[in-house]
Amino acid sequence: VANRRLLLGIDIGGTKVALALGDADGGLLSASRHEAEVARGPDHMLARIVDEAHRLLGAAEGKLEAIGISCGGALDRRRGLVLNPPNLPGWDSVPVVAHLSGALQAPASLDNDANLAALGEHRFGAGRPFANLVYVTVSTGIGGGIISEGKLVRGLSDSAGELGHQTLDPQGPPCGCGNRGCLEALSSGGAIAREARRAVEESPDEGAALLALASGKPDRLAAWMVAQAAAAGDALAAALWHRAMEYLGLGIANVVSILAPQAVIIGGGMIAAGELLLAPVRSAVRSRVRLVPAEEVAILPAALGPDSALRGALALALELA
Amino acid sequence: VANRRLLLGIDIGGTKVALALGDADGGLLSASRHEAEVARGPDHMLARIVDEAHRLLGAAEGKLEAIGISCGGALDRRRGLVLNPPNLPGWDSVPVVAHLSGALQAPASLDNDANLAALGEHRFGAGRPFANLVYVTVSTGIGGGIISEGKLVRGLSDSAGELGHQTLDPQGPPCGCGNRGCLEALSSGGAIAREARRAVEESPDEGAALLALASGKPDRLAAWMVAQAAAAGDALAAALWHRAMEYLGLGIANVVSILAPQAVIIGGGMIAAGELLLAPVRSAVRSRVRLVPAEEVAILPAALGPDSALRGALALALELA
Repeated sequence: VANRRLLLGIDIGGTKVALALGDADGGLLSASRHEAEVARGPDHMLARIVDEAHRLLGAAEGKLEAIGISCGGALDRRRGLVLNPPNLPGWDSVPVVAHLSGALQAPASLDNDANLAALGEHRFGAGRPFANLVYVTVSTGIGGGIISEGKLVRGLSDSAGELGHQTLDPQGPPCGCGNRGCLEALSSGGAIAREARRAVEESPDEGAALLALASGKPDRLAAWMVAQAAAAGDALAAALWHRAMEYLGLGIANVVSILAPQAVIIGGGMIAAGELLLAPVRSAVRSRVRLVPAEEVAILPAALGPDSALRGALALALELA
Repeated sequence: VANRRLLLGIDIGGTKVALALGDADGGLLSASRHEAEVARGPDHMLARIVDEAHRLLGAAEGKLEAIGISCGGALDRRRGLVLNPPNLPGWDSVPVVAHLSGALQAPASLDNDANLAALGEHRFGAGRPFANLVYVTVSTGIGGGIISEGKLVRGLSDSAGELGHQTLDPQGPPCGCGNRGCLEALSSGGAIAREARRAVEESPDEGAALLALASGKPDRLAAWMVAQAAAAGDALAAALWHRAMEYLGLGIANVVSILAPQAVIIGGGMIAAGELLLAPVRSAVRSRVRLVPAEEVAILPAALGPDSALRGALALALELA
């Protein structure tokens, strides 16, 4: 199979970089993952990616047909530039597409991680049965991607899908984006950790269970600890979790009213909470959404775990090949 | 031009029925409008529509190629049925498409009025320059339609675009849909009139200017009176109007964050308020939307006035022809 057609997907993150080699249909042949080492700068990272790609390609035999690249933060998709993502300090208009396309001798394309996670779940994951879906990532932040009739809805400057920045409480807490009361500022992992810290500092007694999970250090509190303590019956954790999930349900219900998708696929680190997250979201959609047949909207966990965007990068390569 | 190809658009409403005859490109040749006379039932209305269509066709010369039909409320687009819209009492699964297609000897298709208003503005109105837009109708209720890459986003059961039913205040006033705190329950003409009635009954002195516009009868208060009194400097009216427009801006900002459209086109009766409505919406979008380039989103009044859906029905006929 020396002339087999191969595709390469690359997911550039602030902590890890992942590569996946796929066959001509985007099916997964092999993958690798390594530390991002962002402190060493973009040249180092790109050289390491090229090395890893050669290693995967050398073991596979075949011809590389196309490369799909996923990256978070601000991109210029048309020019193939990574602009200046918050998780890649020191990167400023890095020509990732030109560099990797040149070094690996194949056409390449770039898109943001939330869009590619949506595409990955649509092509290879929980979204396969659905031509119209919304992917929501609930992690430190909240983002999303929209698939309509099997295609990504990209919007102005490829910025569609910012459902984490709908305002749900006009006077709510400040959001990293500059607005107040965004869904992300109310329901993300970052928001839950922030509220948990505030609560245990205000009421150390009621916060004892949470503090114990954080080894007594409020700074170490994370959203998963709140989920765990809530599941174990801790009242303060349950109240914090309940409030965040109520807003998450509200935000997802709003997206369902606006787009009437066949499915909402939820990924990101917080989906590890499973039913603790899914049940309140389903309940909010069923109770709040009246003019869209809410009972027909499937609300499902992502199937590809941390690889949604990586598999989406393969799907992007598939579009180029 | 006896063999000229003709298209027919029909807009069935609860108070008026409108017909438009178009050329093969959907360009407007002639139009008519008559009272809906809903009390006389669907058979009467359909017979009258057929008469009017024959009259328009008789004056035009040419061959009818296709018919597009707009109607509010619940429809079955695929089967061509008007189910049971609140503004057409007594209508229950009326086979409008089969009836008009048979009587006028041309293929026909049906869609809801908000979708067709979006399509009409996209093809013939303020939305012509934009492949990606959101149309918002602000009237007694609030509805919408979404155009992505030049096509209507229809969603489950053709129910996409219900942006008036995003929840903006979880404990807010009850909405006609069964939820609470929907955009429609906070910012529609119906909501503004309701709040104005409550306010003048609670504070007749502060409400004197509004009451005068309603001939002293709170029941006659309408949203346009609130806009007019607010523009004239009345404090109570200005407070009511300001609050409603703040939520309208919030709801439209949310849609912009989710879809990043090139344009938001605002139609419906309340757009008669002009800048009094547009300015606060533009301001909310500019201040709330941070991750989409909000300054590039055109926020425009509809160009076709009450005919957005009628022209959209012609655009629908164009797709069939």
